[in-house]
Amino acid sequence: MNNFIFNAYTEMLFGKGQIERLPEVLKRYGKSVLLTYGGGSIKRNGIYNKVKELLKDFNVVELSGIEPNPRIETVRHGVELSRENKVDVILAVGGGSTIDCSKVIAAAHYYEKDAWDIVTTPSKIDKVLPIVTVLTMAATGSEMNKNAVISNMKTKEKLGTASTKMIPKASFLDPEYTYSVPKIQTAAGCADIMSHIFEAYFNKTKDAFVQDRFAEGLLETCIKYCPIALKEPENYEARANIMWASSMALNGLLGSGKGGAWTCHPIEHELSAFYDITHGIGLAILTPRWMRYILSEKTVNKFVDYGINVWNLKLEEDKFELARKAIDKTEEFFKMCGIPMTLSELQIDNTNFEEMARAAVIHGNLNEAYVALNKDDVYKILEMCI
Amino acid sequence: MNNFIFNAYTEMLFGKGQIERLPEVLKRYGKSVLLTYGGGSIKRNGIYNKVKELLKDFNVVELSGIEPNPRIETVRHGVELSRENKVDVILAVGGGSTIDCSKVIAAAHYYEKDAWDIVTTPSKIDKVLPIVTVLTMAATGSEMNKNAVISNMKTKEKLGTASTKMIPKASFLDPEYTYSVPKIQTAAGCADIMSHIFEAYFNKTKDAFVQDRFAEGLLETCIKYCPIALKEPENYEARANIMWASSMALNGLLGSGKGGAWTCHPIEHELSAFYDITHGIGLAILTPRWMRYILSEKTVNKFVDYGINVWNLKLEEDKFELARKAIDKTEEFFKMCGIPMTLSELQIDNTNFEEMARAAVIHGNLNEAYVALNKDDVYKILEMCI
Repeated sequence: MNNFIFNAYTEMLFGKGQIERLPEVLKRYGKSVLLTYGGGSIKRNGIYNKVKELLKDFNVVELSGIEPNPRIETVRHGVELSRENKVDVILAVGGGSTIDCSKVIAAAHYYEKDAWDIVTTPSKIDKVLPIVTVLTMAATGSEMNKNAVISNMKTKEKLGTASTKMIPKASFLDPEYTYSVPKIQTAAGCADIMSHIFEAYFNKTKDAFVQDRFAEGLLETCIKYCPIALKEPENYEARANIMWASSMALNGLLGSGKGGAWTCHPIEHELSAFYDITHGIGLAILTPRWMRYILSEKTVNKFVDYGINVWNLKLEEDKFELARKAIDKTEEFFKMCGIPMTLSELQIDNTNFEEMARAAVIHGNLNEAYVALNKDDVYKILEMCI
Repeated sequence: MNNFIFNAYTEMLFGKGQIERLPEVLKRYGKSVLLTYGGGSIKRNGIYNKVKELLKDFNVVELSGIEPNPRIETVRHGVELSRENKVDVILAVGGGSTIDCSKVIAAAHYYEKDAWDIVTTPSKIDKVLPIVTVLTMAATGSEMNKNAVISNMKTKEKLGTASTKMIPKASFLDPEYTYSVPKIQTAAGCADIMSHIFEAYFNKTKDAFVQDRFAEGLLETCIKYCPIALKEPENYEARANIMWASSMALNGLLGSGKGGAWTCHPIEHELSAFYDITHGIGLAILTPRWMRYILSEKTVNKFVDYGINVWNLKLEEDKFELARKAIDKTEEFFKMCGIPMTLSELQIDNTNFEEMARAAVIHGNLNEAYVALNKDDVYKILEMCI
């Protein structure tokens, strides 16, 4: 196990009605709140009204319309608002996009130059406004971690930044708030959770036993409960387990003690930087192809563990046979959840593959991945997705 | 899943050589340090010298000789020292006993009346000195949680107290620091970890899927690595996984979303309040007997999960047969680790069972346990242990 520092200090307020504690939590930080949210679904499902009612004793300024792949322009606009209104705390109500955008606003609030700098150079993050979140979609784990991903459509870049100072102080997780998440977003969210787990699970470090068992447990959670949530959107047990799995999948637990770079995420970041597709869908399409591409004598034992411990397969035959079955199961699962599983279905062809592959290797540091990939490897994986 | 608040905000610095960061971490809180430790093993294995060297720029006052079942008298003495020396931060170097004792000193430092009050009445805990720990034994999880257990030999009470304010700010976990833990303490530590997991796992809440899979993964970790650590005390992989499992077993992850009272811990607290035995050994003796006592039509399915997911048993026969096999496996495992598995071996007979059983039911609130137990039930379980 590698050395690590684990620090996931967010206070997680989980369950029905926990939102009533929002004023008590917010007032620890001050009176002036920047309320951030996305495209208005929180107005349709009543969460906006509930939050506004709870904020009646606070000074509230709003930033709405945060994009599914949040743009640097929106961050800049948020910083103007937070500075003009001398904001004490940012309240992000939404999914990963809203929270990510809010994190970078919180950090850029105290940064004198352009906000894009702290995306490209996380070490420039110093002081950060406190962030509180109300989660409305289970996917990215942003509610309990230090990460944020921001897109710059002008430079065609979608980059991750991180700082422990950006970890939310408190997050409200009411599974009922995810009842109205559309089927495709529920499925894409689970694919994102599963991809976070895969990125940590398929790793060169062999002796992080605790982390690997946790990873398998979280994969089993998604596999069990995603189909239930799709069939019965108001199944509390399913929504609760998915929501909790989402936070656990990317709060540092699974990656602690492991090194190296991620793979599918940086490749997908190029896909959505070029085509603005849903992150989880891009990940679902890439994952089984990447798995098939890297399956080898060196990696097969890990896929055997995956097949046995997650998919309950039996090792009755060839190791490679079992590994391939586990990968097929993964692809079938995403398909069964209603995710379009080819890039063609998203009207994406190979026009930009060359440029995307080059960028993914650089931005994602893919020579440090579980199986090192160069530009040609990424190109081939993208071709397998068509 | 029940509502819950999860908050395990300790910064965990894990791995070889992390101790070098001790001065940088401590100075966040001040210059005046109360250094607490136990019976002197840290002097024999060099940890004491290392820590003292790192503390050369701090004002250090020492409290040594903290007992394996820390006494309220020691807490009172620690409070005198911390007040006299205007201590800013407590540095606990040791296992659960040293950390527990330090937590109550940290809380009692600001409490005007007698320290025993805040053990019996946790709500009296208000302000608490910051606590930093250097862990030297994997067992109680105290390095990452709000709990402390203190003994009062005069009143024959061993009681738990808790406050989120007592959660350590930072904990240093170097698996090498556990190389010199004697075999019997290594085994007893693993039994304590496993008991924490069982207390959360065998619970009335049925839909906490994430938590149950985590629990099984941690049980597998102990079962895999305890025998390795006993055979090869300097096996880093084994010590690292046990150490991390220990923190994960009782930082709130497994109990979140579940209600009810624990069972074996409160019964064991009576055993060690009366006989001052090693906590983990008492737990190992009690656990399989308690399991056999509560096995019924109502609980058998949980034991089936346990047998299949933890012990890799196959459901080829009767459910009860499988459950009994899983319980036998548990008892055989503790025996194989060298733990004396009867109270007779510890020279304990039934003299005080009546009084202990009565006290356990009251202190442990055992009518709220997974399977509610009354005084007679506890008496019978204790008799099964002779």
